[in-house]
Amino acid sequence: MPSEFDLIRRHFTRSPQHTDLAVGDDAALLRPRAGVQLAVSTDMLVSGTHFFADTDPEDLGWKTLAVNVSDLAAMGAEPRWAFLALALPAADDPWIAAFARGLFACADAFGVDLAGGDTTRGPLNLSVTIVGEVPAGQAITRTGARAGNELWISGQPGLAALGLAALHGEVALDAAGRARCVDALQRPQPRVELGLQLRGIATAMLDVSDGLLGDLAHILEASAVGAIVDAAALPLDALRATGANAAIARRCLLSGGDDYELLFAAPASARPALTELSTSLGLPLHRIGQITGQAGVCLLREPDGTLAPAGASGYDHFA
Amino acid sequence: MPSEFDLIRRHFTRSPQHTDLAVGDDAALLRPRAGVQLAVSTDMLVSGTHFFADTDPEDLGWKTLAVNVSDLAAMGAEPRWAFLALALPAADDPWIAAFARGLFACADAFGVDLAGGDTTRGPLNLSVTIVGEVPAGQAITRTGARAGNELWISGQPGLAALGLAALHGEVALDAAGRARCVDALQRPQPRVELGLQLRGIATAMLDVSDGLLGDLAHILEASAVGAIVDAAALPLDALRATGANAAIARRCLLSGGDDYELLFAAPASARPALTELSTSLGLPLHRIGQITGQAGVCLLREPDGTLAPAGASGYDHFA
Repeated sequence: MPSEFDLIRRHFTRSPQHTDLAVGDDAALLRPRAGVQLAVSTDMLVSGTHFFADTDPEDLGWKTLAVNVSDLAAMGAEPRWAFLALALPAADDPWIAAFARGLFACADAFGVDLAGGDTTRGPLNLSVTIVGEVPAGQAITRTGARAGNELWISGQPGLAALGLAALHGEVALDAAGRARCVDALQRPQPRVELGLQLRGIATAMLDVSDGLLGDLAHILEASAVGAIVDAAALPLDALRATGANAAIARRCLLSGGDDYELLFAAPASARPALTELSTSLGLPLHRIGQITGQAGVCLLREPDGTLAPAGASGYDHFA
Repeated sequence: MPSEFDLIRRHFTRSPQHTDLAVGDDAALLRPRAGVQLAVSTDMLVSGTHFFADTDPEDLGWKTLAVNVSDLAAMGAEPRWAFLALALPAADDPWIAAFARGLFACADAFGVDLAGGDTTRGPLNLSVTIVGEVPAGQAITRTGARAGNELWISGQPGLAALGLAALHGEVALDAAGRARCVDALQRPQPRVELGLQLRGIATAMLDVSDGLLGDLAHILEASAVGAIVDAAALPLDALRATGANAAIARRCLLSGGDDYELLFAAPASARPALTELSTSLGLPLHRIGQITGQAGVCLLREPDGTLAPAGASGYDHFA
């Protein structure tokens, strides 16, 4: 069995693009640009909790980094450096090679240097810390939503949850639909460029990892506002097109996790800019509701006009 | 069982001292001082690999952060921010409270803000990423050792390995000695102030986590030099004083891990400065050998003058 040091060297050492000193010393050395704040996020993925033990390791490598990149996208920050701590039950060379391939594909796609890490023996656990930059004072937090703002979501929320349901055998999708949903689950696309472009436009933002309504509640709490989500405005058609019925599609869209789309509030005056941005990025942006002054109250407006408490909570790993 | 969010809030949220935005958004925001490089290190501790499952959680909290602080000390960097990713098999409130107490004791001792993290369910796993600052260009890496430099080690290496052997029942120590050794194992003291003071003095440095000779080999490889370690200069007396016999004391000093003392090279002209530094810090600094020009060759000079290959390798988690 190759040693820990060999494993790290062979699969995880690549020439960094913008790191003064990367893997191999007690710490990495990096130099932030002048005038920035650093945005730093940590996510830990555990086998059996966050992914199946038999998940394709290349997909897993992509997703392990992508979910962290998404956290920076949600702040309007530019991802720059990642650090990987990895516990493996065995030194499985092909598995590690495939995992590294997926991880570096994501790193390359978003300009991230893998600047350091740690590898050890233990139950499979993937912990990434990502460091990005944002011009000082321009980060988009969760606290700025105001009554009268409109509520937007990017892309196609619900696909990942449908993909998970399909893998669990809980829902039957047509072949193309299943492939699209499983791909959304296993290869999420962090909305970095959108996040950067929303600086100065979005008043509050996060990425949807635990479900749209559950994550919306975090914005409402942090901003001390409420919201009305307009069911008629939810982008259900693409979910229905995979073969899912209406109830499942709606549940996956509102409560499913793992989409990593950006959910944000913006003043109504931003509509033209957002329409233009959607076009220039080739990324749908859906206006799905309004921010209200009723702190903590999240209502769902049905197509017939009735209002009811949205009620769903996010997926809780300890619930 | 309290929710994930409750757990995080209750035990890990404290007012940060120098963080613009800490726990609770998609990412933390922090602002490095002007003119610095950031030093970043990640360590993952796994139950059964790095510590016993029944380790006192307060000690474990201390050590989890301390080993990361030590990595920055070994670069001559000032620790500033830490991020904790934590997988727990159950939401055990008293355990988490004690762990957080130990972690924050270490954070307070070294001026570190816990600026973010992630908590999830899974086999016990503690992953910390630490971020520190060093004036640009002044970090002490492993690459600068030169033939003629002298080799130094701080404090009392070997205590932690003796403590581990005592806990394993492999060695009988007297009660006071055992307590000292177990304390060294469970409450390691990162040598931050020493690391900072060694900027401009040490030519190469690391912290001894895997054993003195094994870690020395990393300096020799990175600097393309060799070393002669002088057995007569090894600080064995304090180890013998705990009740350990000569062979065990020597083995623990040379090959035992987990001490987190600083091992460094410095020019002979630095002797007076190092003597003064030792006094001012109240911390022993032992001159234990020389750097040679024989790349990769590490010899041990016995008290009778004979030279033999040092030979021991570090502890390898995959060996």
